[in-house]
Amino acid sequence: MLAKGRHGVDAAALTTARQALPGAAPLVHCLTNTVVQTLTANALLAVGAAPAMVDEPAEAEGFAAVASAVLVNVGTVNRRTAEAMRLAARSAAAAGTPWVLDPVAVGGLAFRTELADELLGSRPAVVRGNASEVMALAGAGAGGRGVDSTAAADDALDAAVALAGRTGGVVAVSGAVDVVTDGSRTVRVGGGSPLLTRTTGAGCALGALVAAYVAVAGDPLTGAVAAHAHVALAAEAAAAVAAGPGTFAPLWLDALDALTDLSAAQVTA
Amino acid sequence: MLAKGRHGVDAAALTTARQALPGAAPLVHCLTNTVVQTLTANALLAVGAAPAMVDEPAEAEGFAAVASAVLVNVGTVNRRTAEAMRLAARSAAAAGTPWVLDPVAVGGLAFRTELADELLGSRPAVVRGNASEVMALAGAGAGGRGVDSTAAADDALDAAVALAGRTGGVVAVSGAVDVVTDGSRTVRVGGGSPLLTRTTGAGCALGALVAAYVAVAGDPLTGAVAAHAHVALAAEAAAAVAAGPGTFAPLWLDALDALTDLSAAQVTA
Amino acid sequence: MLAKGRHGVDAAALTTARQALPGAAPLVHCLTNTVVQTLTANALLAVGAAPAMVDEPAEAEGFAAVASAVLVNVGTVNRRTAEAMRLAARSAAAAGTPWVLDPVAVGGLAFRTELADELLGSRPAVVRGNASEVMALAGAGAGGRGVDSTAAADDALDAAVALAGRTGGVVAVSGAVDVVTDGSRTVRVGGGSPLLTRTTGAGCALGALVAAYVAVAGDPLTGAVAAHAHVALAAEAAAAVAAGPGTFAPLWLDALDALTDLSAAQVTA
Repeated sequence: MLAKGRHGVDAAALTTARQALPGAAPLVHCLTNTVVQTLTANALLAVGAAPAMVDEPAEAEGFAAVASAVLVNVGTVNRRTAEAMRLAARSAAAAGTPWVLDPVAVGGLAFRTELADELLGSRPAVVRGNASEVMALAGAGAGGRGVDSTAAADDALDAAVALAGRTGGVVAVSGAVDVVTDGSRTVRVGGGSPLLTRTTGAGCALGALVAAYVAVAGDPLTGAVAAHAHVALAAEAAAAVAAGPGTFAPLWLDALDALTDLSAAQVTA
Repeated sequence: MLAKGRHGVDAAALTTARQALPGAAPLVHCLTNTVVQTLTANALLAVGAAPAMVDEPAEAEGFAAVASAVLVNVGTVNRRTAEAMRLAARSAAAAGTPWVLDPVAVGGLAFRTELADELLGSRPAVVRGNASEVMALAGAGAGGRGVDSTAAADDALDAAVALAGRTGGVVAVSGAVDVVTDGSRTVRVGGGSPLLTRTTGAGCALGALVAAYVAVAGDPLTGAVAAHAHVALAAEAAAAVAAGPGTFAPLWLDALDALTDLSAAQVTA
Repeated sequence: MLAKGRHGVDAAALTTARQALPGAAPLVHCLTNTVVQTLTANALLAVGAAPAMVDEPAEAEGFAAVASAVLVNVGTVNRRTAEAMRLAARSAAAAGTPWVLDPVAVGGLAFRTELADELLGSRPAVVRGNASEVMALAGAGAGGRGVDSTAAADDALDAAVALAGRTGGVVAVSGAVDVVTDGSRTVRVGGGSPLLTRTTGAGCALGALVAAYVAVAGDPLTGAVAAHAHVALAAEAAAAVAAGPGTFAPLWLDALDALTDLSAAQVTA
């Protein structure tokens, strides 16, 4: 039985995880889309993680085995990178390395939808997407038309819980209020800024930060919530001084770097 | 017979198109080069459009059919993405979806020159390039050495008119003063800033904005002119406050977002 | 016998090379990783060079032959781009065009390590990497875990000298103090900022600037040192005004553009 609404994460553990990042410097192996690679790498560097983008099948399997965490994001997947993603996910699973699946635009496009469904077999520690994507991946919806989502995160709660049951991991649904669940514990993260949705790759970078956090946090739910809290607080700080969506992006990176205390995050049951 | 010099676009229609963008939120399917994907996506988001980069042949045909507009930019084309471009252009043409061809560096490189020539058969609503590229695509020149152009836009006017006759669409030539023609009506857009030429991908992002504008404007010529006017005015605003080419780019995105009135654009016959 | 420690570069020649760039506008053909293409292109534009990213095998051979210089960076290499790199390196060598090899993450990954070793046969004018990469390429170490390096540049001096002996060219090792050698002359470049290591692609962009500089400087050692000096001075200027790693990147591009005098660089024997 699900105990939805029980707040299962210790607030102090979020800040502990954040402060552990620079010392641990987790190597995050990213197989991600070409639109967002730069922002993703810079976001990882900003929080103290070490990014490495390796998506050639000849290299992905071995590299995933030595990484601290792996991110698989299907945003601009093609036949070559799909093979690299399969190898990296299997390699991470075999090594016990946590990996994150970001099912960008799954639902509307058969090729990536079938791939993402197959990748679930390697049991991602975290699935992170918007409501449309999570519902589509769980088989509960037809998916959105791209990376945007017209549904609220809570609309996907049942799908997220079902998906978590299938993977044995955490599912994080991004929205005005994010919903993060491991199937029994559900946590919501508020705050943030609408400018995140005006910045290409902010959600994708969040997926990479989830991977970094899960590598240092003992618990995937704590790691996922900490990453969402960090992104939201940094977005608020950046939005307070940005003149628009263009200047927001570098200021958000500055804030990701500067923020070392996550206790002000709007984390609720 | 050509009536060059007749100003065929209503100035008020430019602002109408600009203000229609956020509500319409046209889904712009971009098959574009990997150097400029981030700036392109952010420019589309800044004006209120919804970008989606999908360049796998298994997905491109279906996605182009549901998009509001399609951009094909051959800047870093390879054999795989060339096939995706063929499928997307045909699919857009079959669906009656407007699509834009950006023939980056066509002329000097046989592989992409043959591809761009073949793509013309799918009748792009707009071809957008610099003078060298447009002359090469029209068969009137040997092409430039890359994305830069040593010729003025008006040097390519005859080539642009000939090319428009071949596609039945609009041809836009970027330069210090841009020249936009549908073969019978020719419009010039002045202003802008030299900093646009110091920012990689500014021209490519313009091609994507043309696609977004054509999706919401009734008339491809109006849409193409509105996109050029919006880019030029935003560049002027950004150049006034930028400290150099690096800070110009985010400020240009801010200005693309903030500008809702295009009536100050230097649009002439 | 090696005369390490003899300062073999005329300080005035560095500024001469820098000021020659905008007039010469060398066309730099970049086959580089998809994470850093945007920053690389913008850095080249900032100093007055003309970037062109062409990595399709059908185009790379011919394009390298007409470029002023070629950059080969294996950061996100795959089977297709590896073939383009082989063709471009051979074509550059045959044409007498200087080319630069950036052996990103060589050592830990067999596919790219074998490729980089093979590419050395086309005798790059400059190899630029961090200490781990240079030691791995010279066969003296096991390589690092990615693009970061835990070794100081001087730890790789013997490897760099050996590698220079093998290529007949220059080897540049990036670090807190950079070490640049042609095997007989060794020059160190200090200064810079730790924020360069927090910006994805700063080192890769440096590799591209080395290519641009070598195209205009008579001597590869002078060109390589000038590029390192320019990057370091610009980083100092940007770090003085940046609020963090996010705002550093655009300010560094501004400073690359603004700096026309390299005489303040910390260039020593």
